[in-house]
Amino acid sequence: MSLNLRIIGGILGILLIINGIFMLLCLPATIYYHNEVDIVPISFSGCVTLLAGCLLYLFNRKSKDGLIRKRDGYLIVTLGWVIMSLSGTLPYVLSGMIPSFTDAFFETMSGYTTTGASIINDIEAMPQDILLWRSMTQWMGGMGIIVLAVAILPVLGIGGMELFVAEAPGISPDKLQPRITETAKRLWLVYVAFTIAEVVLLKLGGMSFYDAVNHSLTTMATGGFSTKNASIAHYDSPFIQYTITFFMFLAGTSFTLLYFLAKGKLNKLAQNEEFRSYLAFILLFTIIITVTVFLRGDVSLEKAFRNSIFQVVSIITTTGFVTADYTAWGYFILILFVMMMFFGGSAGSTAGGVKIVRHIVLVKNTFLEFKRLLHPSAVIPLRLNNRAVSQNVTFNVLAFIIMYIMIFSISSFFMAILGEDDVLTSVGSVATCLGNIGPGIGNVGPMDNFAGQTTAGKWFLSFLMLVGRLELFTVLILFTPFFWRSK
Amino acid sequence: MSLNLRIIGGILGILLIINGIFMLLCLPATIYYHNEVDIVPISFSGCVTLLAGCLLYLFNRKSKDGLIRKRDGYLIVTLGWVIMSLSGTLPYVLSGMIPSFTDAFFETMSGYTTTGASIINDIEAMPQDILLWRSMTQWMGGMGIIVLAVAILPVLGIGGMELFVAEAPGISPDKLQPRITETAKRLWLVYVAFTIAEVVLLKLGGMSFYDAVNHSLTTMATGGFSTKNASIAHYDSPFIQYTITFFMFLAGTSFTLLYFLAKGKLNKLAQNEEFRSYLAFILLFTIIITVTVFLRGDVSLEKAFRNSIFQVVSIITTTGFVTADYTAWGYFILILFVMMMFFGGSAGSTAGGVKIVRHIVLVKNTFLEFKRLLHPSAVIPLRLNNRAVSQNVTFNVLAFIIMYIMIFSISSFFMAILGEDDVLTSVGSVATCLGNIGPGIGNVGPMDNFAGQTTAGKWFLSFLMLVGRLELFTVLILFTPFFWRSK
Repeated sequence: MSLNLRIIGGILGILLIINGIFMLLCLPATIYYHNEVDIVPISFSGCVTLLAGCLLYLFNRKSKDGLIRKRDGYLIVTLGWVIMSLSGTLPYVLSGMIPSFTDAFFETMSGYTTTGASIINDIEAMPQDILLWRSMTQWMGGMGIIVLAVAILPVLGIGGMELFVAEAPGISPDKLQPRITETAKRLWLVYVAFTIAEVVLLKLGGMSFYDAVNHSLTTMATGGFSTKNASIAHYDSPFIQYTITFFMFLAGTSFTLLYFLAKGKLNKLAQNEEFRSYLAFILLFTIIITVTVFLRGDVSLEKAFRNSIFQVVSIITTTGFVTADYTAWGYFILILFVMMMFFGGSAGSTAGGVKIVRHIVLVKNTFLEFKRLLHPSAVIPLRLNNRAVSQNVTFNVLAFIIMYIMIFSISSFFMAILGEDDVLTSVGSVATCLGNIGPGIGNVGPMDNFAGQTTAGKWFLSFLMLVGRLELFTVLILFTPFFWRSK
Repeated sequence: MSLNLRIIGGILGILLIINGIFMLLCLPATIYYHNEVDIVPISFSGCVTLLAGCLLYLFNRKSKDGLIRKRDGYLIVTLGWVIMSLSGTLPYVLSGMIPSFTDAFFETMSGYTTTGASIINDIEAMPQDILLWRSMTQWMGGMGIIVLAVAILPVLGIGGMELFVAEAPGISPDKLQPRITETAKRLWLVYVAFTIAEVVLLKLGGMSFYDAVNHSLTTMATGGFSTKNASIAHYDSPFIQYTITFFMFLAGTSFTLLYFLAKGKLNKLAQNEEFRSYLAFILLFTIIITVTVFLRGDVSLEKAFRNSIFQVVSIITTTGFVTADYTAWGYFILILFVMMMFFGGSAGSTAGGVKIVRHIVLVKNTFLEFKRLLHPSAVIPLRLNNRAVSQNVTFNVLAFIIMYIMIFSISSFFMAILGEDDVLTSVGSVATCLGNIGPGIGNVGPMDNFAGQTTAGKWFLSFLMLVGRLELFTVLILFTPFFWRSK
């Protein structure tokens, strides 16, 4: 079966159209903040992207058969993220705010993958419209992820995402296709509603409307781009910091569960194993770190708690906002944070990383393996949320986790060769980019950024962001020879 | 089914008898080297152990049924290694050479698990008979591992060891039980013959007979205990260093293949996928490191090659002998050595660690997973040495590797809390003990030892050596509640 290039082209066209429209949406900020010098570059970027999208769409509209097959699916998803990132560099490059294409690509890829790693040294020196564009790339990335999680990945059979989709509202095995659009719409509604709610609360907390919008766009995407050099540490208001903590927590929760929550079905949350573990891990780490930070004696208990829970939620949900430098809290806590970088939020949220549900399957399967050793002939199924998980799905999950570790190890090694940095920086930059988190450790810690990385390093880390965001297999399958053998 | 305590007791009795006899075998060295002060402690240790063994054996001789069930098997293996290590401390403690019981237990566990990590600061200050005992613990450990690999682990169903036993000489599925004893005997013959051959070659190379015996005992066990403070760096003879490299290489090869080699069936080696990968990895790493070390400019090309191949073979085979400090060769090479610590030698050799065959299964399965994504309904079996590997075995292997990584990560973290060392030392000590290697990195690098670790750290690392040596599941299953629920 050859690839359905018309379908692929058509969908990429639609993505470019959306991207162009969002670029043009930055123009009100350009005008309001008197960044007149940006009017031409932004309008030009938006129109070119829009036009390219329209052409691509129109020329591919008439497809002989309208079926999207698996192989088309992999290509659409990967090319989609790449084409968004490529066209998304236009406002940065044309406005001259990020003149290097490498840097601009790193920043847009970091946006669309909701990573939040940045190469901008002085964020506050950037014009408001360009920073708004930067926040929008993350918000669009978050929307993309929701569709990916509920509609695309389960069909592609990627490591355990079926586990999540079984939970999605309105999806019943018999009529999957029409319901998926409906489901995606419902989840987007949740996404938009929570973003607006956060804007309102941050504004009430004393943030400017502009900053409230930007931070809300990047919170719900678990992205972490901020308009301030000091990230959320800029705001010394407990209200603002707790509000963002709360919304990061929500954004790292399965949007399906948030939908049920909005409908008042609290029991769905309480019964969900992944949500319970997610909550338990956050509380556990917060308590340990609060106590440790408080015992160091520099801050009050409330501040120790606030800093701890903010940083824990920010890393576990792979958001990457910062209110304190966790790398300065001692060796023990540093290791805890590196561990947390491998947790990931919930499946079906905008969070990146391994995802809690995969860890649950891993741990349960390990225990079952002992039982299987003693009773080799007995069939002992793995149960999740009171449902049996098929052996194939378990197999997928294990393969995913091993591949994640392999990519992490090999990439850390590769970064160590590429750069002149220490081991912490290599490991930290890979962990944070692969997990779509944002800040790492070492020279790319929460008080630093990625500007100092080599050009090769920036391209490689951009690639890792994409690989991590699209759940490894989606991207890497394109590098296998048999993918391209049409038959 | 309740545990068959009589059988378990009887077998532990036999092990103690063997241990006692080996202790008494140190007496000739005591007399020859005029260590008269050790005559009483060593004789006493030997006789007590022998007597305890005889009593345990005699009182458990009459078992109602002679069947060893799986659960008995797990207990026998773990208790066997523990009881050997406990009784093996007697010569050290009673002679006063290692007065601390913690230190003595660490040293014996390091011996029987063929790890080679030591707490002795000045090895050359120890009497010859005690050092001989130290070397013997490793040689006995190696013998134990051979039986474990061909006879016990495959029956217990531990992660992929079935893959190896299918290759063992004289084992056919229909009459497994009687042939296993025969197989073990043949492989022991190989073990003894190669040990003797190494003694002869090392003596010819100019080593004293005593040192030749000690180093041969610990080479074939991939143990790595030396009678010299500087390990093999003490001998500046290329002949000696190449000889030991060669025998380390053999000891890390499947003993089944060595048996075929001794019978002249060279094609068995050439066709074996694990052996080919084992050889390829060693050559690859040796070339990379030789070039890097040579370009540093301190040494000749021959010396760079000799130091590289020695250290590579020593770490990959988990032996742990040292002729040069690989931690001083720069950051890039340090990372390579840490990676190598996770390779392990071949299955069915005396080497510890993950084992090459598991890595092969892992990599092959990862590639197959991509094919399975594209063709979810097709059954695509994993093939090794032209045989299909069952899904259950693959599952076991994946579970083993993930568990290895989990134990490594959690233990590194635990060691970081326990000790006051840096991150390299924590990670290095766990990697080297779990993989039964010997030297690590940081403060437990090839030029240092484990004397400086905390008491809790020494016990924990001893436990890790046992867990790693017995392929994880064997020990850890004893900590599951359902193991003890007899039904």
